[in-house]
Amino acid sequence: MTARPSASELPRGFSFSATACGLKKSGLDLALLASDVPAAAAALFTQNRVQAAPVLASQVHLYKSRHRMRGIIVNSGNANCCTGPDGYAAAAATALKVARELDRLPPSQILVCSTGVIGVPLRVEKILSAVPQLVHARRADARAFAQFTRAIMTTDTRPKWAAAKCRIGGMQVRILGCCKGAGMIHPNMATMLAFLATDAAISPSLLTHALRLAVAPTFNAITIDGDTSTNDTVAILANGQSGAQKITTEGPAFAQFTAALEKICRRLALAIVADGEGAQRVIEIEVRGAPSPRAADQVARTIANSPLVKTALAGADPNWGRILAAAGRAGVPFDFERVDIRLAGIPVCRRGREHHFNERVAHKKMLAKFVPIVVDLRSGRSSARIWTCDFTGDYVSINASYRT
Amino acid sequence: MTARPSASELPRGFSFSATACGLKKSGLDLALLASDVPAAAAALFTQNRVQAAPVLASQVHLYKSRHRMRGIIVNSGNANCCTGPDGYAAAAATALKVARELDRLPPSQILVCSTGVIGVPLRVEKILSAVPQLVHARRADARAFAQFTRAIMTTDTRPKWAAAKCRIGGMQVRILGCCKGAGMIHPNMATMLAFLATDAAISPSLLTHALRLAVAPTFNAITIDGDTSTNDTVAILANGQSGAQKITTEGPAFAQFTAALEKICRRLALAIVADGEGAQRVIEIEVRGAPSPRAADQVARTIANSPLVKTALAGADPNWGRILAAAGRAGVPFDFERVDIRLAGIPVCRRGREHHFNERVAHKKMLAKFVPIVVDLRSGRSSARIWTCDFTGDYVSINASYRT
Repeated sequence: MTARPSASELPRGFSFSATACGLKKSGLDLALLASDVPAAAAALFTQNRVQAAPVLASQVHLYKSRHRMRGIIVNSGNANCCTGPDGYAAAAATALKVARELDRLPPSQILVCSTGVIGVPLRVEKILSAVPQLVHARRADARAFAQFTRAIMTTDTRPKWAAAKCRIGGMQVRILGCCKGAGMIHPNMATMLAFLATDAAISPSLLTHALRLAVAPTFNAITIDGDTSTNDTVAILANGQSGAQKITTEGPAFAQFTAALEKICRRLALAIVADGEGAQRVIEIEVRGAPSPRAADQVARTIANSPLVKTALAGADPNWGRILAAAGRAGVPFDFERVDIRLAGIPVCRRGREHHFNERVAHKKMLAKFVPIVVDLRSGRSSARIWTCDFTGDYVSINASYRT
Repeated sequence: MTARPSASELPRGFSFSATACGLKKSGLDLALLASDVPAAAAALFTQNRVQAAPVLASQVHLYKSRHRMRGIIVNSGNANCCTGPDGYAAAAATALKVARELDRLPPSQILVCSTGVIGVPLRVEKILSAVPQLVHARRADARAFAQFTRAIMTTDTRPKWAAAKCRIGGMQVRILGCCKGAGMIHPNMATMLAFLATDAAISPSLLTHALRLAVAPTFNAITIDGDTSTNDTVAILANGQSGAQKITTEGPAFAQFTAALEKICRRLALAIVADGEGAQRVIEIEVRGAPSPRAADQVARTIANSPLVKTALAGADPNWGRILAAAGRAGVPFDFERVDIRLAGIPVCRRGREHHFNERVAHKKMLAKFVPIVVDLRSGRSSARIWTCDFTGDYVSINASYRT
């Protein structure tokens, strides 16, 4: 990942800005993404019963504006979650201020997102007084976008972004995306914060459909710690400024667009896993031969969230027994004496028993940045793929002292 | 917990022994518990789909012997799980050898248990050649029992045992129990290895009923890492040698006996949590005001298994937002703006928002060995209690290098 996109990767008609308003102890913590014209908008939100005020506000705004949006405002340093009526008022006031400063718009044309600590009142006055400067400083260049990607970070160690292009009716369409997230990551419809901008022309309903298709096998297939956040949001704005013809049906143009969108989402999702709190390596867990897609998914997620599996991976220990034991408690019926397991490409278990392998070679292969695990249940035809990271002492120390 | 029980706490007609047969690199690793006469037996086993050979063998033996047992043989250092037909043969051969040496008994009167690494072939010849000496060295004293409790340990840092007495028809009845377990602990019917011996007289079916009642709120209410083991077993033998009248109905005598049994099980279960891998403190999670007992249990378990909650507890950080966020992803419907949370006795959240508290005082209280958390959903009348431990860097280092 280079530091920033090239000028040709920037979708037309979008501008970005970021500033430090003082919610974090230091660094950028407030960011704006704006479209020059009303854009079709789609978003997916956390399925957690506990939802932050901006998640609720954004859902209301999408409904009120009929999925036509002009911008997204994001703060880091405070999740504005479990903050009561003051929290809702803060989210509403933020949207109102941005809408006014941008173009005397209705506030429902602004999405609001927050990320950071839960349960601490949001000092919204810091945001409100920074908004005018934020709105007027926005620029349609790669540097401004790069600042946007930094301002949304919390425990992330690096910004994460991806770009893709596709052709629609002979015209080029650009999609640019970025995301943040390193802990409290577990997919459930949408996960963490991800923002996508495209100059394609597409209706809000088709855009929502494309987003769902792209998110299912990407953002919804990663887990760092099994903890679904209260603020998860994936949002996309499509402003039609490419000049390409409008996507109006689920035909070839829609398929092209969705494929490009999925490509970006996969790169962003894997970037989150690679930057998982304390993570040393990305683990791909593929379950094959399951009785149903749901069963495959369940077994893959149970393995991906097993602390014993994840700590063994931290030590690059080819302890396949823990993988099989985790599969066994997933609530899925299978005969464990049929199961085959490959670890980092090495067959380590055949028919539920040890398949002789060289421990030192396996250990060495497991020290890689990317370790694939294939579990074949041999009990059906369905499969699933989930990405996670190893579980290190650093995860513990990051989270034992998050607020102090 | 003193080092060993007093002579008066030992149930009549039981003997114990332990030896080092070489399955572990050093230390005791083979243990025997025997009853002088056939004893009523009851046992609960892991619900994991992957079950070790001795778990299967013991289930078959209980069935064949109509729940009349003479002894339990246990090895540590190898779980004899995922070891194929050789593993089953090893468990059967072990029971056969013990039965012959004891009293030319049928092998079905012996329960077999194993604990240790999964997927490594069991060197059963080491066990078989140690059995004669093990059988003949057994003694009905506290020192032999103390050695038994040591021989079943794996990553445990200390032996765990408990004793209780109750009166049945004016006669004293004794129950003595011990257990092992520090990782791969998550309750699902039965959990880890626990052995109980009593000189009460009771039918196998009532004994099974009493065991189920005692295990549900104790062993089945603890979790260390959410990983249900492949070898979990709780077994009890009742040999009737106290001279007390036989318990034949669910009357007052049965209630007395079950209460004493539950008391032991609770002490053993809490001892496991206190000795959780890397644990600094025991956390009691009580969920109140849930719409159903099942919902209460689900919320309590989700909180208890949240890595973010457990790492915050390792740092004694009163980060109640993580507790509420974990409750929110438990799949239980509730209104989070009604929720109250008390952390170590301090109200930290009222109606889903911060309740002002002194962070330093809270931090200090959370450094205790026992930290209660009460989450009141205020959405019903059901409650549940689950015990867990904090999640430290030591858990990671223990499990990253378990096999090396």
